Amino acid sequence: MSGLLQLTKGHGTENDFLLVADPDGLLDIGPDLVAALCDRRAGIGADGLIRAVRSGALPEGAAYDEATWFMDYRNADGSIAEMCGNGVRVFARFLAAQGLVEPDLPLSVATRGGLKAVRFEDDGAITVGMGVPGPGPERVTVTTGAGQWTASGVHLPNPHAVALVDDPDAVGTLVDVPLVEPATAYPEGVNVEFVQVVAPGLLRMRVHERGVGETRSCGTGICAAAVVAARSHPGTSTWQVEVPGGTCSVALLPDGTLELTGPAVLVATLEVDPSALTRWRIPA
Amino acid sequence: MSGLLQLTKGHGTENDFLLVADPDGLLDIGPDLVAALCDRRAGIGADGLIRAVRSGALPEGAAYDEATWFMDYRNADGSIAEMCGNGVRVFARFLAAQGLVEPDLPLSVATRGGLKAVRFEDDGAITVGMGVPGPGPERVTVTTGAGQWTASGVHLPNPHAVALVDDPDAVGTLVDVPLVEPATAYPEGVNVEFVQVVAPGLLRMRVHERGVGETRSCGTGICAAAVVAARSHPGTSTWQVEVPGGTCSVALLPDGTLELTGPAVLVATLEVDPSALTRWRIPA
Repeated sequence: MSGLLQLTKGHGTENDFLLVADPDGLLDIGPDLVAALCDRRAGIGADGLIRAVRSGALPEGAAYDEATWFMDYRNADGSIAEMCGNGVRVFARFLAAQGLVEPDLPLSVATRGGLKAVRFEDDGAITVGMGVPGPGPERVTVTTGAGQWTASGVHLPNPHAVALVDDPDAVGTLVDVPLVEPATAYPEGVNVEFVQVVAPGLLRMRVHERGVGETRSCGTGICAAAVVAARSHPGTSTWQVEVPGGTCSVALLPDGTLELTGPAVLVATLEVDPSALTRWRIPA
Repeated sequence: MSGLLQLTKGHGTENDFLLVADPDGLLDIGPDLVAALCDRRAGIGADGLIRAVRSGALPEGAAYDEATWFMDYRNADGSIAEMCGNGVRVFARFLAAQGLVEPDLPLSVATRGGLKAVRFEDDGAITVGMGVPGPGPERVTVTTGAGQWTASGVHLPNPHAVALVDDPDAVGTLVDVPLVEPATAYPEGVNVEFVQVVAPGLLRMRVHERGVGETRSCGTGICAAAVVAARSHPGTSTWQVEVPGGTCSVALLPDGTLELTGPAVLVATLEVDPSALTRWRIPA
């Protein structure tokens, strides 16, 4: 990777991303460069990097006929990620800002997690189709330093355990990974949501993400919270969900699918010299 | 603050800063905007923001005759800061990159902590005069979850307690503030350094900064570590100090002053729309 790199930084409910337009798939941004860019002190800093590539420019066999754009998403450590509910919104905002799609028209985005339907709402929010939630373990126990709760499982398709609590602020610091039992319920680990039903249609929650820690927001976790809360309120099909990073809403549609609606903000455009990203030391 | 803001992001041993050139003192960047820009998820993210203003453009009474440039440094929360040993280096690098000073010539930088002498080294490092260390409490006790050590005090002029340890990696997570006793020794709190003398002239250390937590680097802490280590090695006047964010060196000069030498890297130039920084929520 030589030459200056043009990036955009944005976030959806404070889940933040670096974005780069690479319509023809010419940029070679490997895991090391992603990790260096996403380093919050020695680089720019973000939860991940999203490259916008035309589906037609992807290698043979990876093409998505129905979607013009592929969301090539990597986590901050450079590892490949399937999808991110907050990231898809920011991706769509970025495509529109770059003039790569019409901001008024619905679009289909190709991701490693399949095609995602996206539309721009009149109020500036963006809605993403999140598919059909799958069942998880019916009843598990979640323990933190501050207490113990029962929780229900949902798969979206990543695993979630949703604990309904009186006050998400009273479940402790979440510095330690919440203990979910029985351990056999989630052999590949689990995202844990602590969710307060403020009123039918209104939730407050905090989330501990598998392998990450407590985060400001988690798109699939927000959907999981709404799915579990709706079980006791079958008449309520739209849920606003407040997380530390902002507010999203979840619609449970008659066809069994979910839609996640929320903000997507582009904060800055950047020009980065990748050669400045190698950790610099005084020669010995 | 309207219009786009032109910023640079850089770091010195991973102590990172946003920098803005404001030669004529025309920009109104208040504490709220600083905090929004330094927010690592909803903004760009940095340990602080440094504004470069000509001393002659400062309000009456604040002028520094000997220094052309004033380093207007604010912490990430928007509060005013006096000085930062890593920040001065990055500030000097920024001035040179912007063509505001000659990169080959020594310069004097005006800070709220007084005038600082800066010079560019041939190998790309930058050296800053750090003044004369002041004595601190002779002997205190530092306790973490992993053990207890005796420590010596140094003021630079901010307060430090330097504990010589066998292995900085074995002093625990430093998530909790280290306990320094007697409590009366540092009524305004203290930065704690855990320092291993690898060999005469070579230190490894970790640092817990007052009010911040463990950091990747602390310029005055690096100097404090060298001062305390040199007490047992009076023949050694130059100390390399390895911190998690990189390596600096400290020279103890015959006149009793200290010089801190280390890297300063500019990573990116940015264009930010301040109006995008207000936390965005879906209207209720």
